[in-house]
Amino acid sequence: MASKEYTLQRMAELLDVEFQGPPDLVIRGVGPLQAAGPDQLSFLANPKYKAQLESSRAAAVIVHPSVQGVTRPRLLSSNPYWTMAQAAQLFHEPPNLPVGVHPTAVVAPDAVIAPDAAIGALVYVGPGSSIGAGTRLYGHVHIAGNVTVGDQCLIHPNVTILDGCRIGNRVVIHSGTVIGSDGFGFAQDDQGRSTKIPQTGIVVIEDDVEIGANCAVDRATFGVTRVGRGTKIDNLVQIAHNVDIGEHSIIVAQVGIAGSVTLGKHVVLGGQVGIAGHLTVGDGVRIGAKSAIAHSVPPGQDLLGIPAVAHKEWFRNWANWKRLPRMREELARLRERVEALEKEWERHGKDH
Amino acid sequence: MASKEYTLQRMAELLDVEFQGPPDLVIRGVGPLQAAGPDQLSFLANPKYKAQLESSRAAAVIVHPSVQGVTRPRLLSSNPYWTMAQAAQLFHEPPNLPVGVHPTAVVAPDAVIAPDAAIGALVYVGPGSSIGAGTRLYGHVHIAGNVTVGDQCLIHPNVTILDGCRIGNRVVIHSGTVIGSDGFGFAQDDQGRSTKIPQTGIVVIEDDVEIGANCAVDRATFGVTRVGRGTKIDNLVQIAHNVDIGEHSIIVAQVGIAGSVTLGKHVVLGGQVGIAGHLTVGDGVRIGAKSAIAHSVPPGQDLLGIPAVAHKEWFRNWANWKRLPRMREELARLRERVEALEKEWERHGKDH
Amino acid sequence: MASKEYTLQRMAELLDVEFQGPPDLVIRGVGPLQAAGPDQLSFLANPKYKAQLESSRAAAVIVHPSVQGVTRPRLLSSNPYWTMAQAAQLFHEPPNLPVGVHPTAVVAPDAVIAPDAAIGALVYVGPGSSIGAGTRLYGHVHIAGNVTVGDQCLIHPNVTILDGCRIGNRVVIHSGTVIGSDGFGFAQDDQGRSTKIPQTGIVVIEDDVEIGANCAVDRATFGVTRVGRGTKIDNLVQIAHNVDIGEHSIIVAQVGIAGSVTLGKHVVLGGQVGIAGHLTVGDGVRIGAKSAIAHSVPPGQDLLGIPAVAHKEWFRNWANWKRLPRMREELARLRERVEALEKEWERHGKDH
Repeated sequence: MASKEYTLQRMAELLDVEFQGPPDLVIRGVGPLQAAGPDQLSFLANPKYKAQLESSRAAAVIVHPSVQGVTRPRLLSSNPYWTMAQAAQLFHEPPNLPVGVHPTAVVAPDAVIAPDAAIGALVYVGPGSSIGAGTRLYGHVHIAGNVTVGDQCLIHPNVTILDGCRIGNRVVIHSGTVIGSDGFGFAQDDQGRSTKIPQTGIVVIEDDVEIGANCAVDRATFGVTRVGRGTKIDNLVQIAHNVDIGEHSIIVAQVGIAGSVTLGKHVVLGGQVGIAGHLTVGDGVRIGAKSAIAHSVPPGQDLLGIPAVAHKEWFRNWANWKRLPRMREELARLRERVEALEKEWERHGKDH
Repeated sequence: MASKEYTLQRMAELLDVEFQGPPDLVIRGVGPLQAAGPDQLSFLANPKYKAQLESSRAAAVIVHPSVQGVTRPRLLSSNPYWTMAQAAQLFHEPPNLPVGVHPTAVVAPDAVIAPDAAIGALVYVGPGSSIGAGTRLYGHVHIAGNVTVGDQCLIHPNVTILDGCRIGNRVVIHSGTVIGSDGFGFAQDDQGRSTKIPQTGIVVIEDDVEIGANCAVDRATFGVTRVGRGTKIDNLVQIAHNVDIGEHSIIVAQVGIAGSVTLGKHVVLGGQVGIAGHLTVGDGVRIGAKSAIAHSVPPGQDLLGIPAVAHKEWFRNWANWKRLPRMREELARLRERVEALEKEWERHGKDH
Repeated sequence: MASKEYTLQRMAELLDVEFQGPPDLVIRGVGPLQAAGPDQLSFLANPKYKAQLESSRAAAVIVHPSVQGVTRPRLLSSNPYWTMAQAAQLFHEPPNLPVGVHPTAVVAPDAVIAPDAAIGALVYVGPGSSIGAGTRLYGHVHIAGNVTVGDQCLIHPNVTILDGCRIGNRVVIHSGTVIGSDGFGFAQDDQGRSTKIPQTGIVVIEDDVEIGANCAVDRATFGVTRVGRGTKIDNLVQIAHNVDIGEHSIIVAQVGIAGSVTLGKHVVLGGQVGIAGHLTVGDGVRIGAKSAIAHSVPPGQDLLGIPAVAHKEWFRNWANWKRLPRMREELARLRERVEALEKEWERHGKDH
C-alpha cells in the first residue's frame, strides 16, 4: 500500500520530534527491527531489544533520547512506540474507495451525503440519514433511517447501523458489527412467558471511537447506550442496552457488558471479561482476561478472577489452592501426633 | 417514533386492566419514573421506588392494586412490569418498510412472497422459499433456497437464513445472525486429519422466538436443530448442531451450547455460560453467568460456577476459598502447640 | 438433497473398502442407526451401540472387521466413522449456485473470475482480486481488493474477505465471518489516549481449512496472520493479529486467541477457551473447554482450568476444593483436642 516517501527531516517535522542524521535520507515505510528494509524506519520501544537494533537493516530508527550509543540515523522521541504509530499513519492509506455514490448503492432521496463522502457498491442509506465529509461507507454497508454518521469515518463492509443511531467523527467500525440492535428486554407473566419491552432508545458512538468486527451494541430501552470518545473496542464484543462507556477505555475481544453498566474513563477490560448488569466500574480500573465482575468496582483497582478480586489477593488464593494437597497431608500427620499424645497421657498422665 | 396517543380509559381497555383517574386523560408514550414526560405513562414495578413515583412528572402510572396512597391517574395491574411492556408495545412501531418488493431485491421466480409482506432493498430470496403475511425482510437480508419464513416476522438487516430452514410466526431475528450454518462435524483419520461430515439437517425456529444480533445457529447433522416457541436469545450466542431448546427459555449473550444438547422449558442461562455436548438440562433450570455445565442437570436446579454446582454450595466453597490463608495460619499455630506438648512430655512425662 | 444412488459394490470401490452382501444393493443415503431408512447406509462407530444395529432399518452398515455376528450387508472399515463421513460426502451437494456471474453482482473490471466459478446475487469482488476454478461465492459475499481465493472454495452468504488476504484451495468459510479486519493495535500517550497502529499485514488461509459462522480473523500488524492447512474452526471464534495456527488443528466455538500466539499442529481447543498474547502452544496440545491459557504449553499436554493446569492436577485440586468444608471441621476438632491436652498438662503434668 505504501507508495509514499518522506525525508528524515520532513518526518521529524511532521511528527514534531528531533532527528539526527542526513536530513534528506528518504524513508519509504515503517517496520519492526527485524523486518524493516533498508529504506524503512524502525523503532526501539523497549531498550532490552537494543541487540536487534544493531542487526536491523532499517534506514533509521525511533529511539528514546536516553538510549546510548545509537549511531544510525534516528528520530528522538520520549515515547517511541507512539511516534512509530504516528509515523506508520503517514504511510498508510485506508482501502481505496472513490468519492461519490456507487451506481449500485441505494440511497433514500432525503438522505444527505457530503459531497466528498464515498459510498461503495451495494450500500444502503435509509431515509433521513446523513453521511459526513470525507466518510467512507464500504460495500454492503447498511445504514438504516435517521442515522447520522459524522466526518472522516471508516465504515467497513457489511456493517449495520440501525435506526436513529448517532456516530461521531473519525469513528472506525469494522465488518459485521451491528450498532443499534434491540436490547434484550422482556417482561414475564405468571406462567413465565416473555413479552417484549420495545427498545425505543438509540446508540451514540462518540468521536475517535474504533469498534472491531462482529460486535453488537444494543440500543437503549429508553434513552442512550453510549461509547465515549476515544474508546477502542476489539472484535466480538457484546454491549447491552443502556451501557455507558467512558472516554479512552480499552475493551478487548469477546467481552460482554450487561445492561445499564456504567464504565469509567481509561478502563481496561481483558479478553472474555463479563460484567453483570447495573454495576459501576470506576475510572482507571483494569480487569484481567476472563474475569467476572459481580460487584461495582471503585476507581483505580486491578482485579482478576471469577468472581474478580484484587490482583494480589487472586495470586495469594491461587498459591493456597495449589498448596491444598500439602495442607491435607499436614493435617493428617498432626492428627496422628495428637492421638499419640492422647494415648501417652492415657497410659501415664492421669496416674497421679 | 411515538406519534400515537390513547386516552387513559382506552389504554385500560386495550390492556384489560382497571383504571382510576380522568377517562379522557391523553397518554402519548411510556417512560421510566424519572424520565417520563407530563403526557407519558410510567410504572412502579418495585414498591421500593415509590419515592421516585412522588417526584415523577408522568401523567399516569401503572401500579399494583396493593400499593397505598397513590393519588395520580393510574392503571391497576397485578403485574405492572408486564402491563408496562404491553403498553409500550401500543406506542411502538418497528422501523418502517414499504409493503411489496423493493426493485433492487433479488427474488427467485418460484419464491412465494405474501402480498402484504415487505422485502427491502438489496434483499435476496432464493428458489423455493416462501415469506409469510405481514413479514418484513429489511435491507441486505439473505434468504437462501427452500426456506420458509412465517407470518408477521421481523428479519433485520444483514440476517442470513440458509437452505431449508424453517422460521415460524412472529419471529424476530436481529442483524448479523446466521441461521443454518453447517454444524462443526468432522471425522479424523489415523494421522489426525479431518474430513467433513456433511451437515444435511435443518434449523427450525418456532413461533414467537426472538434471536439477537450476530448469533450462529447451526443446522443439524441429520434431522433438526430446534429453538422452541417463545424462547428469547440475546446477542453473540452459539447454538450447535442438533441442539434442542424448549419453550419459553431465556439465553443471555455469548452463551455457547455444544452439539446435541437438550434444553428444557423455562430454562435461564446467564451470559457467557457454556454447556458441553450431549447433555440434558431440565425444565426451569437457572444457570448463573459464566458457568460451565459439564454434566446433565435435573429440572428446577439453580447452578453456578466452573464447573457449575448448586448455588448454595458455590457460595460455601467460595467462603472457604477466601478463608484458606487463615486456615493455613491456624494449621501452623496448631503444629507449634503440638510440638510444645511433645517436648514437655519428652522432658517430664516419661519419667515415671 | 440426496437424489444420488450407488450400489453397495460401487460404494465399496469409491470408499476403497471391502464389502459383504449383494453387490447390486442400491444405497440412496446415509443416516444414524436409529434414523436410517431401508435404502440407506448406516454405521457402527462404537461397538457399544451394537444393540441399535440389530434394530436399525438401514439397508447396510459400515462396521469394523473385528465386529462379530453382523449379518446384514456391510462395508468393512478400520475407521467406520471416517468411512461414514466419506460416504455421506458422496451423497451431498453444496447448495446449488449457477456457474457464471449473477447480473446483480458487482465485479471490478480487472478482477479475474475462473470460467467455471459461480458468483451469486449481490456479490462484490474488488479490483485486483481473483476467484479460482470451481469456487462458489454465494449471495452478498464481499471480496475487497487484491484478494486471492483459490479453487473449489465455498464462500457462504455474507462473508467478508478484506484487502490483500489470500485464501487457499477447497476452503470453506461460513456466513458472517470476517477475514482481514484490522488487528487491535494502539499506542498510548502519557494521558492514556490511544492512537492507531496501522495494520498493514494480511491473513493467509491455507488449503482445506474450514471456518465457521461469525468469526473474526484479524490481519497482521506487519506480515501475516496464518491458519494452517486442514485446520477446522467453529463459530464465533476470535483470531487476533499475527496469530499463527498450525496444520490440522481443531478450534471449537467462541475461542479467543490473542495477538502473536503460535499454535502448533493437531492442537485441540475446547469451546470458549482463551489464550493470552505472545504464547506458544505446542503440537498435539489439548485444552479443555472454557480454560484460560496464561503460559506457553509444551507439546502433547492436556490442560484444563482457569488458569489451565495439567488435566490430572485440575481434578485433584477440584476434589480438594470440594473437601474444604470437611478440612475446616477437622481442623476445629483437632484444636479442641490439643486444648484439652494442654489443660490436662497444666493441671497434672508440671507437678513433678
